[in-house]
Amino acid sequence: MEQSNIDLEGTLRALCQRARTAARALAPLDRAQKDRALRAIAERLRAEAGEGKRSAVLAANAEDVAAARAAGVSEALVDRLVLDEARLAAIAGAVLEVASASDPVGQVVGMERRPNGLLVGQVRVPLGVIAMIYESRPNVTVDAAVLCLKSGNAAVLRGGKEAARSNAALGELISDALRSVGLPADAVQMVPSLDREATRILLGLTGMIDLAIPRGGEGLIRFVAENARVPVIQHYKGVNHLFADAGCDVEMAYRLVENGKLQRPGVCNALECLLVHEGVAAPLLGRVAALSERGLELRGDAATCALVPSARKAAEDDYGREFLAPILAVRVVRSLDEAIEHIGRYGSMHTEVICTPRYDHAQRFLREVDASCVLVNASSRFNDGGELGLGAEIGISTTKLHAYGPMGLASLTTLKWIAYGEGQTR
Amino acid sequence: MEQSNIDLEGTLRALCQRARTAARALAPLDRAQKDRALRAIAERLRAEAGEGKRSAVLAANAEDVAAARAAGVSEALVDRLVLDEARLAAIAGAVLEVASASDPVGQVVGMERRPNGLLVGQVRVPLGVIAMIYESRPNVTVDAAVLCLKSGNAAVLRGGKEAARSNAALGELISDALRSVGLPADAVQMVPSLDREATRILLGLTGMIDLAIPRGGEGLIRFVAENARVPVIQHYKGVNHLFADAGCDVEMAYRLVENGKLQRPGVCNALECLLVHEGVAAPLLGRVAALSERGLELRGDAATCALVPSARKAAEDDYGREFLAPILAVRVVRSLDEAIEHIGRYGSMHTEVICTPRYDHAQRFLREVDASCVLVNASSRFNDGGELGLGAEIGISTTKLHAYGPMGLASLTTLKWIAYGEGQTR
Repeated sequence: MEQSNIDLEGTLRALCQRARTAARALAPLDRAQKDRALRAIAERLRAEAGEGKRSAVLAANAEDVAAARAAGVSEALVDRLVLDEARLAAIAGAVLEVASASDPVGQVVGMERRPNGLLVGQVRVPLGVIAMIYESRPNVTVDAAVLCLKSGNAAVLRGGKEAARSNAALGELISDALRSVGLPADAVQMVPSLDREATRILLGLTGMIDLAIPRGGEGLIRFVAENARVPVIQHYKGVNHLFADAGCDVEMAYRLVENGKLQRPGVCNALECLLVHEGVAAPLLGRVAALSERGLELRGDAATCALVPSARKAAEDDYGREFLAPILAVRVVRSLDEAIEHIGRYGSMHTEVICTPRYDHAQRFLREVDASCVLVNASSRFNDGGELGLGAEIGISTTKLHAYGPMGLASLTTLKWIAYGEGQTR
Repeated sequence: MEQSNIDLEGTLRALCQRARTAARALAPLDRAQKDRALRAIAERLRAEAGEGKRSAVLAANAEDVAAARAAGVSEALVDRLVLDEARLAAIAGAVLEVASASDPVGQVVGMERRPNGLLVGQVRVPLGVIAMIYESRPNVTVDAAVLCLKSGNAAVLRGGKEAARSNAALGELISDALRSVGLPADAVQMVPSLDREATRILLGLTGMIDLAIPRGGEGLIRFVAENARVPVIQHYKGVNHLFADAGCDVEMAYRLVENGKLQRPGVCNALECLLVHEGVAAPLLGRVAALSERGLELRGDAATCALVPSARKAAEDDYGREFLAPILAVRVVRSLDEAIEHIGRYGSMHTEVICTPRYDHAQRFLREVDASCVLVNASSRFNDGGELGLGAEIGISTTKLHAYGPMGLASLTTLKWIAYGEGQTR
């Protein structure tokens, strides 16, 4: 290893060690103490939003945005990077929502008395130190910090290079807020070096980091999964299907397609493929074809193209693809079995939907389709921590370990066994 | 990569692919179908136990034992390897116990109606393919196979070299039992190659294996943790402490030490270190010193050695050490804080015990000590799946992700979200 990497490893190890010390201080805190820290963060964010051009965060962000534009970054990406008064106020509001959520730490699960009189149960405790590896959006810095704090964990944050100045300013703001309520500023730390080598070293610090969560494009996530020696929870992509069954309510299926595909085409719970039973293909595809007026492109099999002349012939790799755009792959199938088989082959275990009037088909689909969220007669867009009732969400997992689906505060904790005895021995 | 390794990778990949196919067949099975397979395995094991010298399993085991003795393996290790009629019958009994346990798969957790009428909840589903990497005891082959089957998972088993013939015979018996009830024999497979390269390749098959569980010595576990690209749950060792607080019932503390240290010194939930408050050091250490008659060796700090002349002076690395032998490190401490600090520094997050008459100390110890199981006034030996009410146990995790502490059937499953709607969109 080169000298500079040895130095970098030393720096990162020291940073994580400080985070571990802070995590031990956070673990036994009561909810009131943690919420006080969250409210202090929200107040500072609101104050920054009111400062306009004098805001340190907005000034740093303006520099990031200017640098990104100068580097020729696309406007879509620049838009993810931009902070303004309204967005800062919205971030502050999200922080207050986490403050109002109940605290998972300390919840006792399933306490029971054993035949020998021992009273045993499990209590929810924080994981320890959580590393977030993410891309350009600076709001993730605040989201991740407050979800970790609320669940009693220290956070080590490695954001995108484009947002380096914004994240540093937000990190300062958070540290300042933590100090103001007497909590260790080391509980939330920004990684100082943003090159991939730093990430690789960080992900190798076994025993220092309890969980790494990558959020971003598939390239980033694969890099993390391949280089990590610490536990990782991730999802690569959402290749989500809607199966419109024979006899389904065509109008309902149409609305589920429209909502799933067009409401926000760039998100992981958007629809990417419509599987339509031959019995309803003509009326449903007729309705869906009209969405071309709103920019929807269909890529279908031969049967689809026969019914919808404007549809493009799907290439083999259009199935199993996450378009992140108003493009929908379509296939006409003859049965529920064929649909389930297609999903087993091309799905990404993220979100799968059936639109059906049949009880038996609904139950079979729920049982046989392997995905983090399987829905009957509802939009794929509901696979979301807020929509499923978790409150804020730190990510969606398609790893089956620990958490499968949206991860809320409880997914940032674990269950420790406790036992109350009166001298029992074996 | 060398040609032979490419071939080996192809073999292992094909084996895991067959396991994945079998896992899909197991996932939707009802409990009755799985229990039928377990009973068929138990019947065959009982039949082998009754066959005596004509038993294929016992004959294969005799060859393993002879080879181990010829290679100069210690009698303690040979004892772990040996199967006889009684042990086979005991293994069959353990299989029937798993058959009588309830099935975690299909349990619905926390179903609720959201404000938009969507009914959302989580249902327990199998993980998929579980790889077990373990050492000499052949009973682990059967235990792991039946726990995986009962929880709807396929198992890929890589046992120790010393038990290769025994495991192959047991694998045949299990395959035969699976076929006899119409289940895929590929649901339980033995890895054909037992060198470390095969294990390394197996642990690199991301997407093919959903969870790897190593069981064995620290060397094996570190090898797995360092080489795995698939998720791993493990514990390295159990460096477990008992803190005897001021004013504690000396007789109770003595019994907890005796039970924790001497009942089975070689297991992971045995005691390794006694922290004794100076207020009870003289009477408690006097009682404990008498255990030298039963072979207990004490290694203590200066205060201990002053009270117990027969105690050896502890070396620095005697603290934090898993002796797996009738040796106990001892330290006299002045306070609960000092005990908690010692455990934070030297403990292995496995099992920690306080013996105290004080309510506040019990609560602080339960809250502040970070271990998979923390007990008040009870033996460390209770950190065990059976004792805590989980039924059979596939291992104990000191990884905080997914499972922390003993892992029973439920730890071999995950929760998938399901939603019942009537056309809801966002």
